[in-house]
Amino acid sequence: MTMLDVAVIQGRGFRNVAQDGRVTGFQFQLRNPNYRGVAASLLDGIDVVIDGERVPEHVPLWTLQGRTSTLDELRASTDVRWQLDEPATITVPRPGGLAVGVHTLEVVVHLRRSYFPPMVSRTPFTASASPVLVPPAPDGGLRYGVSTYSYTQDVYTSMTLEDVFADIADLGATGIEILGEGNVPNYPSPSSAWIDEWHGLLERYGLTATNYGSWVDTTRWRDRDLTVEEGAEQLQLDLRLAKELGFTSVRPKFGVTSWDLDPHPIWQGVVERSLDLATELDVVICPEIHAPTPIRHPVTQGYVDFIEKTGTEHFKLLIDTGIFNTAPVLEMSEEIESGDGDEVPEHLRPLAVPMADLVEVLPHVHFIQAKFAQVDDDLHDLHVPWGEIIPTLTDAGWSGWLSSEYEGRREPGRGRDQVRRQHALLRSLAARR
Amino acid sequence: MTMLDVAVIQGRGFRNVAQDGRVTGFQFQLRNPNYRGVAASLLDGIDVVIDGERVPEHVPLWTLQGRTSTLDELRASTDVRWQLDEPATITVPRPGGLAVGVHTLEVVVHLRRSYFPPMVSRTPFTASASPVLVPPAPDGGLRYGVSTYSYTQDVYTSMTLEDVFADIADLGATGIEILGEGNVPNYPSPSSAWIDEWHGLLERYGLTATNYGSWVDTTRWRDRDLTVEEGAEQLQLDLRLAKELGFTSVRPKFGVTSWDLDPHPIWQGVVERSLDLATELDVVICPEIHAPTPIRHPVTQGYVDFIEKTGTEHFKLLIDTGIFNTAPVLEMSEEIESGDGDEVPEHLRPLAVPMADLVEVLPHVHFIQAKFAQVDDDLHDLHVPWGEIIPTLTDAGWSGWLSSEYEGRREPGRGRDQVRRQHALLRSLAARR
Repeated sequence: MTMLDVAVIQGRGFRNVAQDGRVTGFQFQLRNPNYRGVAASLLDGIDVVIDGERVPEHVPLWTLQGRTSTLDELRASTDVRWQLDEPATITVPRPGGLAVGVHTLEVVVHLRRSYFPPMVSRTPFTASASPVLVPPAPDGGLRYGVSTYSYTQDVYTSMTLEDVFADIADLGATGIEILGEGNVPNYPSPSSAWIDEWHGLLERYGLTATNYGSWVDTTRWRDRDLTVEEGAEQLQLDLRLAKELGFTSVRPKFGVTSWDLDPHPIWQGVVERSLDLATELDVVICPEIHAPTPIRHPVTQGYVDFIEKTGTEHFKLLIDTGIFNTAPVLEMSEEIESGDGDEVPEHLRPLAVPMADLVEVLPHVHFIQAKFAQVDDDLHDLHVPWGEIIPTLTDAGWSGWLSSEYEGRREPGRGRDQVRRQHALLRSLAARR
Repeated sequence: MTMLDVAVIQGRGFRNVAQDGRVTGFQFQLRNPNYRGVAASLLDGIDVVIDGERVPEHVPLWTLQGRTSTLDELRASTDVRWQLDEPATITVPRPGGLAVGVHTLEVVVHLRRSYFPPMVSRTPFTASASPVLVPPAPDGGLRYGVSTYSYTQDVYTSMTLEDVFADIADLGATGIEILGEGNVPNYPSPSSAWIDEWHGLLERYGLTATNYGSWVDTTRWRDRDLTVEEGAEQLQLDLRLAKELGFTSVRPKFGVTSWDLDPHPIWQGVVERSLDLATELDVVICPEIHAPTPIRHPVTQGYVDFIEKTGTEHFKLLIDTGIFNTAPVLEMSEEIESGDGDEVPEHLRPLAVPMADLVEVLPHVHFIQAKFAQVDDDLHDLHVPWGEIIPTLTDAGWSGWLSSEYEGRREPGRGRDQVRRQHALLRSLAARR
């Protein structure tokens, strides 16, 4: 099942529409702003103001319960309803449609309410929003996905798992990345009904299962470290579960032993014991290169050495784009002790890893988590230099997933909006090449 | 399926707990504040401060996945998890428990996160709330229910239908009132699967279907009024659907023709044509007495005359308690044009209907919608004189449903909290008699 946004103008459904290959207008979706569903004949039009330009109330078309009608057709209708649990789709004619990016949209829905005194019974419901028009994914080796991490705190509170699929598909992305210990009910033993539901959702929304986030909690026991055997058992459990759900890579997050995020020394033994299984399942184990650890660093070098030593195809790097940040992210989603004074605390200082370093390790990079915190109304990312990253990837001919990982402020619904902005930005840059 | 509150401290689950007939403590529920689920052995205690009094972190008991453990047991556990989609129940020992009403609760959950540098890997997650302890319903003729209208805008955005049932049952109410054209998917033709789900929820949560809100939209057609035939068809459709869902009364909201809410003249013909069906189905048709129409008013008198003339048992009054308001509700959930200047606009002036008027019509009253807008932290309703209404009802020996109809500000989740406050207030007053 899916939920609706509490805002009347829905995040999903904002798009240009085409007829016979020509863009003829744009669309958006509305939640019924009244407290009850109504016969569509009670609708009395909708004023639309897009980017300051007014569209008269009789012009937009309404799609309700799968049927598209003019206002006059609605007024005469006998068997169409605007239900509380079904959004209306509004189509506004406009040759050429709208430009990619953030728009301002205001609407006034007019509804006759018989139970109000006649003078006030034609009720205006107003709403406004800044919806994001996302262009189609351009051709090329880059594939566009989203991690459920982007929707932290929204999932299970205002989004079902199906909403995650619906959001991702609606913005034209085709990959879904999950957290095993977050998004799999009754982990590590999901019911077979849930596994069926999972595969059904992949099919229905046309998404590919990309990367599966896992953990090796080296401090799982308070009084001793996790052993290599225990770590391998954990990783292998996740490899099997990931495979069962259709994922092609697993990112194990090992416990660390230092501020530099040196992984716990069991990492190598755990991976060595699990490589045969990974090969058998054809699932790639991907350690994450994550700030404050840059590419030129013993941790990353240790992983590269391991790849070269073993010659494996099933252990590769996952790059978190936070390492390229050129400005500090001061509004963390979860704040750690942040030092004192005005100085940016050490662990928040941007690494600004140069593109040359990325180019060097690209042959070993399997997956990119497109970490970000804020894309503004002009599609400018305040921290991540996408204008350098995207050309670097396309010029190098890299192919693989860019998976949105929003990690900014956790106001309800913010991640959903920000992911749309990020995709609009990334695809615009990729289309320019 | 159910959703979780976005607030870490959940609205449901706050209650005193008893053992062998003695109250031994209190309980509350938490959503996992982390972005992933974890093995319970990673939990490192919870600080609880209740009404300013601190409970040390090792004292509370944890119930996870149906198993209750001490902190030491959690630390040693190998097969218990705190999932993202399953709340933890925290039990705090406290002889005598907590008093009825609004409390202040602060918590700090400590969690070891292996993937953070050792110095900061024991992470404190803080949360606070003002949860409401609701007493059990006292014996007597008053029965306690809730209307889904209380949760307007929450249903379908952060609450599923099952959440409505879960909220109502959690606060110890036993009746559910719905809006037919709001809460019945694919109204007026719900699927048989949905009807089965509905009856399954009634059974599982031990709720009784009380009143079903319906509408007779006399302005359904823009160019002419609804006919008696059309109105009767609408009412009879709703009577049948209400019966199928187990409801025992239907409130038809007729269109009105004046500021006094005079019902459209078809009302009487529509009801006359539907009385036989109502009798056959044993469903009571209940017109609503709603501000600005008081009890001593031609509209109400017209209904009473109809009852006396027909001698029917299947047409009775429904009282909306907004008519007893002693102060204006200035923060309406939906604002109508509200005049100008500082004066309270005419339609918002409190009617303050006297109790003697209520007593007079009580023999004809089938159902009470306990309309309200705000109950404060001291369980004082700012508008409705419950201290007079409840004794009037109990002294008169009236028996029937008091069904909460929250109609205050529509911030997400506010209605859910306010309904708990109202039930704490109503039941405290009823228990005093």
